[in-house]
Amino acid sequence: MTRILCVLPTDEDQRRQLQAAAPNASLSFSEKAEFSQAELQEASVVLGNVSPGILKQMPNLAFIQLNSAGTDGYLVPGVLKDHVILCNATGSYGLAIGEYLTAMALTLVKKLPLYRDQQFEGAWTDQGTVGSVYGSNTLVLGLGDIGTEFATRMAALGSHVRGIKRTPGGSVPGVEAIGTFDDLDAWLPWADFVGMALPDTPQTRNVMNRDRIFSMKKSAILLNAGRGTAVDTDALTDALKTGAIGAAGLDVTAPEPLPPDHPLWQCRNCFITPHVSGGLHLRQTHERMVALFCRNLQAYFSNGEMESVVDRSTGYRKS
Amino acid sequence: MTRILCVLPTDEDQRRQLQAAAPNASLSFSEKAEFSQAELQEASVVLGNVSPGILKQMPNLAFIQLNSAGTDGYLVPGVLKDHVILCNATGSYGLAIGEYLTAMALTLVKKLPLYRDQQFEGAWTDQGTVGSVYGSNTLVLGLGDIGTEFATRMAALGSHVRGIKRTPGGSVPGVEAIGTFDDLDAWLPWADFVGMALPDTPQTRNVMNRDRIFSMKKSAILLNAGRGTAVDTDALTDALKTGAIGAAGLDVTAPEPLPPDHPLWQCRNCFITPHVSGGLHLRQTHERMVALFCRNLQAYFSNGEMESVVDRSTGYRKS
Repeated sequence: MTRILCVLPTDEDQRRQLQAAAPNASLSFSEKAEFSQAELQEASVVLGNVSPGILKQMPNLAFIQLNSAGTDGYLVPGVLKDHVILCNATGSYGLAIGEYLTAMALTLVKKLPLYRDQQFEGAWTDQGTVGSVYGSNTLVLGLGDIGTEFATRMAALGSHVRGIKRTPGGSVPGVEAIGTFDDLDAWLPWADFVGMALPDTPQTRNVMNRDRIFSMKKSAILLNAGRGTAVDTDALTDALKTGAIGAAGLDVTAPEPLPPDHPLWQCRNCFITPHVSGGLHLRQTHERMVALFCRNLQAYFSNGEMESVVDRSTGYRKS
Repeated sequence: MTRILCVLPTDEDQRRQLQAAAPNASLSFSEKAEFSQAELQEASVVLGNVSPGILKQMPNLAFIQLNSAGTDGYLVPGVLKDHVILCNATGSYGLAIGEYLTAMALTLVKKLPLYRDQQFEGAWTDQGTVGSVYGSNTLVLGLGDIGTEFATRMAALGSHVRGIKRTPGGSVPGVEAIGTFDDLDAWLPWADFVGMALPDTPQTRNVMNRDRIFSMKKSAILLNAGRGTAVDTDALTDALKTGAIGAAGLDVTAPEPLPPDHPLWQCRNCFITPHVSGGLHLRQTHERMVALFCRNLQAYFSNGEMESVVDRSTGYRKS
């Protein structure tokens, strides 16, 4: 009998759904990955992000379904044998993180953080003029599920949206132009909002370097909910402190967690959240993830087509 | 020669536009309404919200164009003679305040204020689960320009939207049902977001009374960018403190300004801004307003049809 180990938090109903998708398998659930040696030896399927150290104790592993979109850590040579199928959870996070990026864009353009900062003093103090999303220009870096959900929301709110992706071509509703990273330098000075939803790959690391950050509009707002490594943190701090850009909203940082004494925390035109836009913070994310896990389990056992299979050479799903 | 007094802040280009709309009139500009006795005696047109005390010194006043949507103060008997044409600036604020309400809805549902409160301590601390606008229910009170702009934005972001207005009928793109205040009690428990954009009239005062506030969902978010008098402030404070509702986002309060020692300032699930969603905080508001003033000046001098003429018996524009 196939043994499946699941570390994704689940309620009773979700366990029932997973069992129904793999009726002939034996499922073990442990959010903290506290499995017996026998379970680790025997199991051929893992659901959820167990640590690479545990994976090395699993000689029979054939399929691992991550609950993250990013695959950082699992692509390191030696962690997964070549034949192991690796799937990520692309598609589960688009709603949650796309809404988060939209919330950050609106929050910052309306200066709401500055009003929050004075609230507990009871200060009825005007913080001056604001901008709008309507009529603005938005540049989205990364047009996967998350970038697409952000792009369509900004377009729906009346922003002119352009997107940049790894490979040329394609179309996204509401996005007026799609380019590649070759267009980035030309398009950055055009943008009022730059929304980043990039995974961590050799190609995306430091893509927003000092020159590019300083090429943005003085009023521009930089948003990042992909990976912190895509932004030069020191250059961003300098840009925010000197007013070279307007504001930043970050759910990811490099390093992460951001050390408590890092100067970025104290920049009033920076708004930092501790990598919470995704995860299981939104009920619909959890629902979409369990539904994906069920579909992939069924496909795995019936030799059907699996979703979000990761191309290990790029870290992206095979398209 | 007709004399026009203008208290709206204007730049040189906007003054040129206004002069071109009334080529045979003499325009006097003073943001602080520092006009000579002769100017007050002679002028028949006022652009912008001068104080009622000044209006009483203007025997020849025939037309006053307000820069506010609300007409509070100008409808008090004795302020304006019966024949004076009163126009408000309905239509100028929809974009600014509709976006503000959308920003507040997203900010609060994503718990962003709680993250801001811990930022300056450098705290990388998770604040738990969040909600979404997508798939939620939104009830909009007041479907004028502001309420309509908010409603269409929430609908565009995937919320199910219902609206309540003074008079039955009509339709707004994206709004699934439109009712009157007779529907309020039945619809309040349905809503995840309640967005208020009501003027101050005898009918709207205290419309969100204690019973209605406490009939909302425990997770519901109340937003008010109309007039503070429409909400029972003490009841709202109690509801927020006891968790009877989820959160509130307020740009208007009663009393206003909210006294520094008012307990509402200290409610972490309340987000207060000091009546800044409108005004001239957004460039487009200023542009729309000057354009409206120009159209109404041209109409006034050519006996054409003026816009946003206020029905003094209701405080609303004549439809």
